[in-house]
Amino acid sequence: MDLLSIKDPSFLKGMSNKELEGLSQEIRQFLIEKLSVTGGHIGPNLGVVELTIALHKCFDSPADKIIWDVGHQSYVHKILTGRASEFDTLRQYKGLCGFPKMIESEHDVWETGHSSTSLSAAMGMAIARDLKKEKNYVIPVIGDGALTGGMALEALNHIGHEKKDMIVILNDNEMSIAPNVGALHNILGQLRTAGKYQWVKDELEVLLKKVPAVGGKLAATAERIKDSLKYLFVSGMFFEELGFTYLGPIDGHNFEALFENFSYAKKTEGPILLHVITKKGKGFRPAEADKTGTWHGTGPYKMDTGDFVKPSKKQPPAWSSLVSETVRKVARKDNRIVAITPAMPVGSKLEGFASEFPERMYDVGIAEQHAATVAAGLATQNMKPFLAIYSTFLQRAYDQVVHDICRQNLNVFIGIDRAGLVGADGETHQGVFDIAFLRHVPNIVLMMPKDENEGQHMVYTALKHDNGPIAMRFPRGNGLGVPLDQELKTIPIGTWEVVKEGYDAAILTFGTTIPMALEAAMRLEKQGISVKVINARFIKPLDGNMLKTLFNDNIPILTIEEAVLQGGFGSAVLEYAQSHGYYHTYIDRMGIPDEFIEHGDVSCLLEEIGLTTDEVVKRISIMARKKQQRA
Amino acid sequence: MDLLSIKDPSFLKGMSNKELEGLSQEIRQFLIEKLSVTGGHIGPNLGVVELTIALHKCFDSPADKIIWDVGHQSYVHKILTGRASEFDTLRQYKGLCGFPKMIESEHDVWETGHSSTSLSAAMGMAIARDLKKEKNYVIPVIGDGALTGGMALEALNHIGHEKKDMIVILNDNEMSIAPNVGALHNILGQLRTAGKYQWVKDELEVLLKKVPAVGGKLAATAERIKDSLKYLFVSGMFFEELGFTYLGPIDGHNFEALFENFSYAKKTEGPILLHVITKKGKGFRPAEADKTGTWHGTGPYKMDTGDFVKPSKKQPPAWSSLVSETVRKVARKDNRIVAITPAMPVGSKLEGFASEFPERMYDVGIAEQHAATVAAGLATQNMKPFLAIYSTFLQRAYDQVVHDICRQNLNVFIGIDRAGLVGADGETHQGVFDIAFLRHVPNIVLMMPKDENEGQHMVYTALKHDNGPIAMRFPRGNGLGVPLDQELKTIPIGTWEVVKEGYDAAILTFGTTIPMALEAAMRLEKQGISVKVINARFIKPLDGNMLKTLFNDNIPILTIEEAVLQGGFGSAVLEYAQSHGYYHTYIDRMGIPDEFIEHGDVSCLLEEIGLTTDEVVKRISIMARKKQQRA
Repeated sequence: MDLLSIKDPSFLKGMSNKELEGLSQEIRQFLIEKLSVTGGHIGPNLGVVELTIALHKCFDSPADKIIWDVGHQSYVHKILTGRASEFDTLRQYKGLCGFPKMIESEHDVWETGHSSTSLSAAMGMAIARDLKKEKNYVIPVIGDGALTGGMALEALNHIGHEKKDMIVILNDNEMSIAPNVGALHNILGQLRTAGKYQWVKDELEVLLKKVPAVGGKLAATAERIKDSLKYLFVSGMFFEELGFTYLGPIDGHNFEALFENFSYAKKTEGPILLHVITKKGKGFRPAEADKTGTWHGTGPYKMDTGDFVKPSKKQPPAWSSLVSETVRKVARKDNRIVAITPAMPVGSKLEGFASEFPERMYDVGIAEQHAATVAAGLATQNMKPFLAIYSTFLQRAYDQVVHDICRQNLNVFIGIDRAGLVGADGETHQGVFDIAFLRHVPNIVLMMPKDENEGQHMVYTALKHDNGPIAMRFPRGNGLGVPLDQELKTIPIGTWEVVKEGYDAAILTFGTTIPMALEAAMRLEKQGISVKVINARFIKPLDGNMLKTLFNDNIPILTIEEAVLQGGFGSAVLEYAQSHGYYHTYIDRMGIPDEFIEHGDVSCLLEEIGLTTDEVVKRISIMARKKQQRA
Repeated sequence: MDLLSIKDPSFLKGMSNKELEGLSQEIRQFLIEKLSVTGGHIGPNLGVVELTIALHKCFDSPADKIIWDVGHQSYVHKILTGRASEFDTLRQYKGLCGFPKMIESEHDVWETGHSSTSLSAAMGMAIARDLKKEKNYVIPVIGDGALTGGMALEALNHIGHEKKDMIVILNDNEMSIAPNVGALHNILGQLRTAGKYQWVKDELEVLLKKVPAVGGKLAATAERIKDSLKYLFVSGMFFEELGFTYLGPIDGHNFEALFENFSYAKKTEGPILLHVITKKGKGFRPAEADKTGTWHGTGPYKMDTGDFVKPSKKQPPAWSSLVSETVRKVARKDNRIVAITPAMPVGSKLEGFASEFPERMYDVGIAEQHAATVAAGLATQNMKPFLAIYSTFLQRAYDQVVHDICRQNLNVFIGIDRAGLVGADGETHQGVFDIAFLRHVPNIVLMMPKDENEGQHMVYTALKHDNGPIAMRFPRGNGLGVPLDQELKTIPIGTWEVVKEGYDAAILTFGTTIPMALEAAMRLEKQGISVKVINARFIKPLDGNMLKTLFNDNIPILTIEEAVLQGGFGSAVLEYAQSHGYYHTYIDRMGIPDEFIEHGDVSCLLEEIGLTTDEVVKRISIMARKKQQRA
């Protein structure tokens, strides 16, 4: 059929299983084709083709609420709800979002990006439904990886207790992005091999009820025996103990099995968990064969070979690599260094570290809070933990950073990856809040390097720092291609550097926006305005000496940051000026305005929010002119 | 014996069980007596007297690491580690801290205040121990309430998988602060009644190993039968499935039982969980009888009757009551309102709401992340959730506020209780970061009322607000005693009010610091400086009209906030001035400096950090003088 003609999922109702299988083929082909050009989350979506079709056939979205955890597996759902024609623009500026998005469709009832929120959201929707005395199904779809996130576990505990009607689909593909870890993963592994689904349970219950009731002390024992017998026949005791009915394992690529179990689930009272086994990358050989997570989300690839479309020229080192490899280098001489990642060993490029120091590398699963406090625990024992974490996911560990790491002033090195705009992943993933949520926390040092050479020295500085927590933010993508010093050295905490001299105005910035500042300075120079460019590599503490000199010279200052303006670096400069009695200083600030920034190519986004060379030139000119007028 | 003479726990090694029972009695008497004067966490500590003694007798602190989750149950530990003489100063300014504190003792190996961190910390310490090839025991002591926190569950999942040696003491008193909720609580309940501890397990393992091995398809079935038999005899399958050896239930007030199990645990490889049953308030009748959590932490009380020492005159309404009761009042007319608390129904004074609207009140347990996202889920269904949460605990839900509530721009009302300095609970509990971690989040409205009358109108405003998330911070303690309007009304978002006119300077402040500002203004008036005092009740958005008028008048401005200065309200005013082109404005800011603020009476703390009327007078005088000089 013509996927582009789909308006909503109602057409599925009349289709036979054979027709659905044909549709699955078409959808797979469509995804493999489209994503070979745009890139995107191919693996997760190929895994849920049948599952998504089955959900939309058996349930009535949007009356029934299908909630996609994380949300990158929602492409099939997007096709079935009338968005196939937009896939050429997937994850591009003003194009189709890679995650569920309410403004795109009424079928997107919950927006995501971060993991493990679906069960809590479902609980809220179930409470609302019952209070309104409405009848509808609430169906969170959560992966086995996302299930290890603390808030998902909090939700399991609460839902199991409250006994709300809810159909949880556990989409078990044995992977999160990388292979899963944790005891829950082992439990699921046992269940997967345990055999077919266990409706025998119902019959067993009936049978057990016939066992004569016994009073007094024997009652408890009798109950135990009943439970024990149940355990003999019934899988999923872990979930059963938490108050869920467990159904599984179910072949997630078999329509008959899915329909049978969905229809059973619809009749079941209270929370039920359907353990659905799927294969990530199903139907596309290179993605199916993937063991490490390479095919979780990709750039463009060749459909026939599965080769990735490589950039034509050699790229400078990826930031994640540079950081992890520098940590690895230092770790050879300092055996106190231990690396911790919350489920991102590949994204954080820790494979090399892991293979060289398997005992000093911990992938704790999707568990950012735990990751941060394990690091704190290590630091109390005079170890030197390196917490590798994306900026956006560090939001999950804010309290652990405040309460456990910074309050105890522990020597933890937080490597804040994907800081700044990340592009295609969009508003849930932009790493733009970290400065604002870290700067006010006592004891922390926060820095960002201007290029990969300074980056390696900063990593070294962080690993040598023994006076409390220290964090280095670095962007997504690759370095600038500058030569790397052989010898690592420390950079004095709180010192900035002048990267270009100038006398009429000064730009204070750091990281990715330094090239923009330099370019603007060149252009201003031609207009006769001499601009100093300062690499304000320490966001906290600021370089007070340099600031005072600037204030005393009373030259206009422009701060630039690829991060939110409110409470950001520019504000820190304003605060510094004010608290040191510099009331009459021209300061202007550029950064990210007070709104969530959508997905799209970073250069488009920067253009949209006015974080451009043109704007820098304009702002400096205005200030310089104002100052002249006043002088 | 003389508790004051204790230097360290080594004296316990030679004592008989009978002597230890005598010691327990003395410690209980000591605690009941001392805390009757100072107040403190009497209930939790009376519950762990024998447990703490037993731990210090069987293990060798500080080589062995005893980690107290939350930490308010560490008083007995403090007595046994040489701090009995300091109990007269408990939780007072410069006195003994109510939580473990490294600078107090080498036996305090981990600092706490917030819940559920102990297992992650223990994991860090266990990793460090093994890397250093040291031999010591790591012993986190966690309550059944704290176990429901997401990060504790993340940790269970990780520890069970990694199989590190660790002795987890589950201190099960069936309460967190209020009675516990959740499926885990039900599981523990079943275990408590399941009979004596299950060493039979070992023998069973041996027995089962003798069952002849079968290959092929039968193997899995044989394994299932083995598991099932184990389940018949072995309690704690929930923990066993997670990879822990489970031992329990153990009478936490019986030395023999404790010693026997500790010695078994020491010999066990891998993580072991000891399920210890204790009685909160044990040995003090009023505390033992407590069902709601009144005796969790208290002020002074009468030792003989257990009556609380009431303030002599009638107090204005508690802020928590005012807020919850106003929500309750509005909820009578708006059935979309649902209250959510993460384990604080009593602290947040939600009892009245709960009894009137039992179906619209959810205590989700210690699970702040889940609480916030349940609220978000409700809001997607056009309900009006009221999330009642302490400022310090909202830190746990930062990402859920950003990613789920604010990014989706949902109508959630966050009631931020205990905002500002909280006093005796100290640095882990000060509610001083909320402005800095919320102000930069797009879409949120953040406000704080000047008195309880404005407070009730703000609650009404928040419940009527249908344009996104809105949060109201309010302090610990009681209102000012102002009369309450009968009719509730809405306050226009983003509007401030002038509470005192003046022409030479202006103070912008909100909430608890308004009386200070008024007093300072009176004193300045006598010096001939006329000061305007503005109730800056909206922290976000600011009142731009009022600010522009002030800037145009060019009178010196002092901002005051009982919150951190970095990224706070004062910074918002600086940002506003800068971004609207007011470069030459005298602005000064008072607030909390960049350090963690210890425990003590709030007035002492305010004095220490210079948040005083004298300082306000001084700052305004300086600015007024400077301005005169310049004019």
